[in-house]
Amino acid sequence: MIRVGVNGYGTIGKRVADAIVKQNDIKLVGVTAIKYDFTLKTAIKKGYKVYCALPDCKESLEEAGVELQGMLDDLLNEVDVIVDATPEGIGAKNKKIYEKAGVKAIFEGGEKANVAQVSFVAQCNYDEAFGKDYIRVVSCNTTGLCRTLNTIKQNFGIKKVRAIMIRRAADPHQINKGPINAIIPHLHIPSHHGPDVQTVIKDLNIITAAVNVPTTVSHLHIVMVELENDAKEDDVIDAFENTTRVLLVSKDEGIESTAQVIEYARDMLRPRNDMYEICVWKESINIKGNELYYIQAVHQEADVIPENIDAIRAAMEACDARESIKRTNKALGIVK
Amino acid sequence: MIRVGVNGYGTIGKRVADAIVKQNDIKLVGVTAIKYDFTLKTAIKKGYKVYCALPDCKESLEEAGVELQGMLDDLLNEVDVIVDATPEGIGAKNKKIYEKAGVKAIFEGGEKANVAQVSFVAQCNYDEAFGKDYIRVVSCNTTGLCRTLNTIKQNFGIKKVRAIMIRRAADPHQINKGPINAIIPHLHIPSHHGPDVQTVIKDLNIITAAVNVPTTVSHLHIVMVELENDAKEDDVIDAFENTTRVLLVSKDEGIESTAQVIEYARDMLRPRNDMYEICVWKESINIKGNELYYIQAVHQEADVIPENIDAIRAAMEACDARESIKRTNKALGIVK
Amino acid sequence: MIRVGVNGYGTIGKRVADAIVKQNDIKLVGVTAIKYDFTLKTAIKKGYKVYCALPDCKESLEEAGVELQGMLDDLLNEVDVIVDATPEGIGAKNKKIYEKAGVKAIFEGGEKANVAQVSFVAQCNYDEAFGKDYIRVVSCNTTGLCRTLNTIKQNFGIKKVRAIMIRRAADPHQINKGPINAIIPHLHIPSHHGPDVQTVIKDLNIITAAVNVPTTVSHLHIVMVELENDAKEDDVIDAFENTTRVLLVSKDEGIESTAQVIEYARDMLRPRNDMYEICVWKESINIKGNELYYIQAVHQEADVIPENIDAIRAAMEACDARESIKRTNKALGIVK
Amino acid sequence: MIRVGVNGYGTIGKRVADAIVKQNDIKLVGVTAIKYDFTLKTAIKKGYKVYCALPDCKESLEEAGVELQGMLDDLLNEVDVIVDATPEGIGAKNKKIYEKAGVKAIFEGGEKANVAQVSFVAQCNYDEAFGKDYIRVVSCNTTGLCRTLNTIKQNFGIKKVRAIMIRRAADPHQINKGPINAIIPHLHIPSHHGPDVQTVIKDLNIITAAVNVPTTVSHLHIVMVELENDAKEDDVIDAFENTTRVLLVSKDEGIESTAQVIEYARDMLRPRNDMYEICVWKESINIKGNELYYIQAVHQEADVIPENIDAIRAAMEACDARESIKRTNKALGIVK
Repeated sequence: MIRVGVNGYGTIGKRVADAIVKQNDIKLVGVTAIKYDFTLKTAIKKGYKVYCALPDCKESLEEAGVELQGMLDDLLNEVDVIVDATPEGIGAKNKKIYEKAGVKAIFEGGEKANVAQVSFVAQCNYDEAFGKDYIRVVSCNTTGLCRTLNTIKQNFGIKKVRAIMIRRAADPHQINKGPINAIIPHLHIPSHHGPDVQTVIKDLNIITAAVNVPTTVSHLHIVMVELENDAKEDDVIDAFENTTRVLLVSKDEGIESTAQVIEYARDMLRPRNDMYEICVWKESINIKGNELYYIQAVHQEADVIPENIDAIRAAMEACDARESIKRTNKALGIVK
Repeated sequence: MIRVGVNGYGTIGKRVADAIVKQNDIKLVGVTAIKYDFTLKTAIKKGYKVYCALPDCKESLEEAGVELQGMLDDLLNEVDVIVDATPEGIGAKNKKIYEKAGVKAIFEGGEKANVAQVSFVAQCNYDEAFGKDYIRVVSCNTTGLCRTLNTIKQNFGIKKVRAIMIRRAADPHQINKGPINAIIPHLHIPSHHGPDVQTVIKDLNIITAAVNVPTTVSHLHIVMVELENDAKEDDVIDAFENTTRVLLVSKDEGIESTAQVIEYARDMLRPRNDMYEICVWKESINIKGNELYYIQAVHQEADVIPENIDAIRAAMEACDARESIKRTNKALGIVK
Repeated sequence: MIRVGVNGYGTIGKRVADAIVKQNDIKLVGVTAIKYDFTLKTAIKKGYKVYCALPDCKESLEEAGVELQGMLDDLLNEVDVIVDATPEGIGAKNKKIYEKAGVKAIFEGGEKANVAQVSFVAQCNYDEAFGKDYIRVVSCNTTGLCRTLNTIKQNFGIKKVRAIMIRRAADPHQINKGPINAIIPHLHIPSHHGPDVQTVIKDLNIITAAVNVPTTVSHLHIVMVELENDAKEDDVIDAFENTTRVLLVSKDEGIESTAQVIEYARDMLRPRNDMYEICVWKESINIKGNELYYIQAVHQEADVIPENIDAIRAAMEACDARESIKRTNKALGIVK
Repeated sequence: MIRVGVNGYGTIGKRVADAIVKQNDIKLVGVTAIKYDFTLKTAIKKGYKVYCALPDCKESLEEAGVELQGMLDDLLNEVDVIVDATPEGIGAKNKKIYEKAGVKAIFEGGEKANVAQVSFVAQCNYDEAFGKDYIRVVSCNTTGLCRTLNTIKQNFGIKKVRAIMIRRAADPHQINKGPINAIIPHLHIPSHHGPDVQTVIKDLNIITAAVNVPTTVSHLHIVMVELENDAKEDDVIDAFENTTRVLLVSKDEGIESTAQVIEYARDMLRPRNDMYEICVWKESINIKGNELYYIQAVHQEADVIPENIDAIRAAMEACDARESIKRTNKALGIVK
């Protein structure tokens, strides 16, 4: 059993913890917290052991009645791998602590690429991460692009990608973030997402742009790919059907928007209505000349969760990519 | 085992079906459908038997590959109770079919009160529904008001209630409904909700008003109660703590809005992030003179689900109120 | 001519400046700024003289090419009255500067009542403000409640008011404020709005509660009034028809929501689609027993603008209430 | 004086009417209506003569107290040109009536291209429309694309355009349209907007895609252009600065989103906060290799209004393009 701790119990951390618990070969030793709230309350109810992430937070946690198992250092003593799900930029600072403790670490996409030895999407470069001490699971948007573009590249070759990200401006619980009624463009094109994809798919020619819109449920990507080789729509559909963690959805089945993508996850009884898969609309797959178009929904809270699990196995050399993905998928209810 | 069918597989029907499956003393015989979509797809994956609700829909369902077990009539032949979760007004028309088939029926709050022999909220008037053939589970808003007002009335007496409902304008998947950026008042005050509460709590003096606002996750009620007897805030807190299906929530624990109410349901890993309980903010409970104020969140998709289960048992005289509520709560993960 | 300066050029300041320019008996000497942006750009295009509000901002304003007429002190030297439209709480700090300069000051509703000698709504207590040095125009919500409740009180007597405010969570241009998809209750009931109304209508028995919702265009109030004397709906309609700055609107004329209230202002070609009037829905006016109900829309950006103009005249003893309101209304296109 | 009638008094019709009134060489004879509402009320207050568009609507209009000048036919008898601002598809049916009456007609972008002899954007192809009887002003999105792409094409040559339209899902007053919290993609790529641009700029190689998002204030376009000739960002900025009805905006001046674009129009005191100009973000103009990127806001309610005025002059051979644009711009307060 690989022993894992989760440092940071927010949007990603709580999901990674719940996902670890479902694996047969990975054990959740504990999670860290900095404040008591309803989310931590549910963690305690699930029986997760709670450690204090920061000395300053110990008193208030104990006053709130949290039974602490110790501090972050104590947790690090008990684990093989720590998943760092702290806010953007904190991971880089934590790295020294992990180095000192001699534990391997998985970082998230909010950190810069150089925090880790490798930026990671399981189906793209698991082997590259095999045995590494520091692995960075890339952001939700980058993961979404990598999953589908990797398949297109391997099957048809890619000359150039243009991808537009229409981003949800806040997660469902983030009530302090706007806008309520506006579209906010990221004014610099190309955006940083293209180079981030290149940390995983090294030689990809990709340009990205992004806007924020007033919705909380999902990002949406419009992807335009100049192909190297000829392809037909059906070839692309076939290729995606054979791609793990990519789901073809259809207006024919009532999925017309990001809202229904999430409703589908709800109807599948996924925990927290999580859609781990990148959902590509079948009807959106079109080819004009040598250029392929498709539209995909990316559930910003969830798509990186299976990657975190696979990254743990890669770091620990637990098994190969195919086996890890298979185990993770089965445990999380991902069909393919 | 009570044999139950669910007619109508939408927002309420799909939840009732999933809830039935979790009961030890109730069996889901099947559900009806009128079209194939992602929701029905998941029903089939769960192994639910599908019947065709309308002759006109048979062909398209079969073309979509749905293996039909028969028509609605065939389902009615196999059940003791049918839960009618069809759209507003259809239930009244279906009643004749149920009468003819000799099955008991549970209707939903979209129907008028006279569709049934009794309007029902389990903790208020289970006994009244005992053995009845036609029971109407009242709407989400009415259920929410009944649960908390019943407790206030029994503990402190009520002279008069004024309740304002700030309603979510659409369910999460209803992408065709607005408004996007407006508040829409129900212009007639008192609104119909007050009289609807009186179908359950007969002699309650209650006035209601309502507005629609651009959100999808939950209704919110501001309740003002002129009490008959003296009370202190702590008495009310105690009373609610002893009330089933009412949950005290708090800004102290990070619940500041309807969004966090739902996030709490997600963190509890509730199916479809369903909050069956009416959530009352502890901080909102205030008494000035003889008037009590409190604010509650009402999850419009979910709060009536336990009532549907209890209504089935009441109709079948399966057990008494306390026992039915206990069984339902346990099966659905409702703590109290 | 009354010489006036406007300190602070945001949502309120820019509207007050434009409104002053339309008066025959008041002269806009200049406005202050702290940064260059598109709003200031339009002020300069309109020919407004710009003064620097804070020493620290002088350099950046000049770098942006703004031709400064001087600092705040220089502006104060040229005016009889300064309208302080700075952010909440800054006005109180500025008061000393105004005292030292010997100019009268109008403060806004974000300041506490004790910043001024009188809290002000023109049609309620103009006389009380006559000749005063420091007058506070109350907030948009308080102004909205005072205008209609004053009429009800004078015509029918008021035993008790209960008012629920459904508030827009952000102004149209405030893209950093949420929520995007939630209802946020003010958890303490009664809210502070009731006592604020009492700074204008002294002996009013009023209880208020408030929530924030994801819209930008207007607040909406549900008002419930226990009357002292008998009244019929038509009496109330008549009373409001005879009330300045209160407009009866109707679903019959296509006004069903706050969005159409603003569309009406657009169609009237009001500057910035400003609805200076409190809009009461005719259909919402209902009386049950001795209790009156009505619903009103309050344009948060605009309803206090005429009050600021009247407050200037009151401070300067320029004319009586009736005359000032008449002049202001005519200049701003308010029909009655 | 050119005599013009406006058939249809909705979002476009009411704006065209108000714009006509501001021209020195065009006279508004009257507008048609089908129902009485607050919008028509303001038209009457402005002194516009009202004709009845449909026989069935006569009675209800008269009952509402509207003094009708006659029916549509009567209006047609009095005009040289009719602007058809009726809902999508109705214009095509009306064409026969206009032919019979022998009046020239301007259609809007909701109609198919073949309704008219020419599809029109003033700065692109005024000459082509000169003297024509039937002219179609293209849709807001198409107009927005044509204005900027025409300039790029003429200055730098265009190999291929890819444009993504992030569309507001409803106009501000359309409270019945959703979504409230979702992104809805147009699933067919390329979308119909590309071919529609080609009705104006004939030989342009352009691919478009579109999504709907929950906002009401403005569309936003992300435009990617493969250039024929070398260019630098400053060249593009210069070109746009010399383009009529295109405005360069900047985050430096506080314009970060579509909300501030509209706030700018409000601060300019534009009627109905109309932004006639296409606003291109200066910071978004970037060139990588031979590919140009830029982002523009398109005010869906307003950008076609000046085109309607110019189309009238083109139809009537009143003057040349330069002169018409100059007159229209001056009358509407468009600086360049």
